[in-house]
Amino acid sequence: MTTTQELTAGLDDLPYNVFARACPSRGTLEHVTGRWGALTLGALYEGSLRFNELRRRVDGVSEKMLSQTLHALERDGLVHREAQPTNPPRVDYELTPLGRGVAERLHALIHFVEGSMDEVLAARERYDSARA
Amino acid sequence: MTTTQELTAGLDDLPYNVFARACPSRGTLEHVTGRWGALTLGALYEGSLRFNELRRRVDGVSEKMLSQTLHALERDGLVHREAQPTNPPRVDYELTPLGRGVAERLHALIHFVEGSMDEVLAARERYDSARA
Repeated sequence: MTTTQELTAGLDDLPYNVFARACPSRGTLEHVTGRWGALTLGALYEGSLRFNELRRRVDGVSEKMLSQTLHALERDGLVHREAQPTNPPRVDYELTPLGRGVAERLHALIHFVEGSMDEVLAARERYDSARA
Repeated sequence: MTTTQELTAGLDDLPYNVFARACPSRGTLEHVTGRWGALTLGALYEGSLRFNELRRRVDGVSEKMLSQTLHALERDGLVHREAQPTNPPRVDYELTPLGRGVAERLHALIHFVEGSMDEVLAARERYDSARA
């Protein structure tokens, strides 16, 4: 398939390679695909949010984990933290242009997974009943 | 932005929602984006592989973690395990059509992350020096 070959050739030309354990791209991939990273970027893809709004949107995340997730994404240049000069102070989180590029691709993945769940659940049933 | 709204509208219409902690789609998203799930699917996107080939490709994965990862992906119907009737027996792993759909989107994400690493590393330097 031409597309696959082209994409793979493109990958091999890059100086960064997530398959190599020491490559810094692996760490960034983990920040964006980790349990909370993917959902945080997915939530911010819909628009900028305050910390507590994010926490409600990413159902189940603790304050500490969300805070750590946001710091890692901010350090990688994917999320911008904007402290508004209001009283009380208000902090908004939004995607940077680079973060938007990542979030677009994550969103496509999330959308595909959600749309595949009927098939996934059917596969699980087959798998479990073959081993029951 | 029309595209965002359309995509978001599409998401809300689906019965599955990764943002809800009890939705089974969250578990599947974690299987495909987890530390080893993403790399395993990314490796199989290039073609079917034997267990030990996979282990070499996904640099740093332990035998136990790769085995667990493959079981979860097989149960979700994303990876097909084919035992060849050879002596010694030989087991190939390949993507199912559903797994290929997931892996295509993961591959786009991985490719984008690898291509963004110069920007990510520059952002990290700015972040760290602003706090030094």
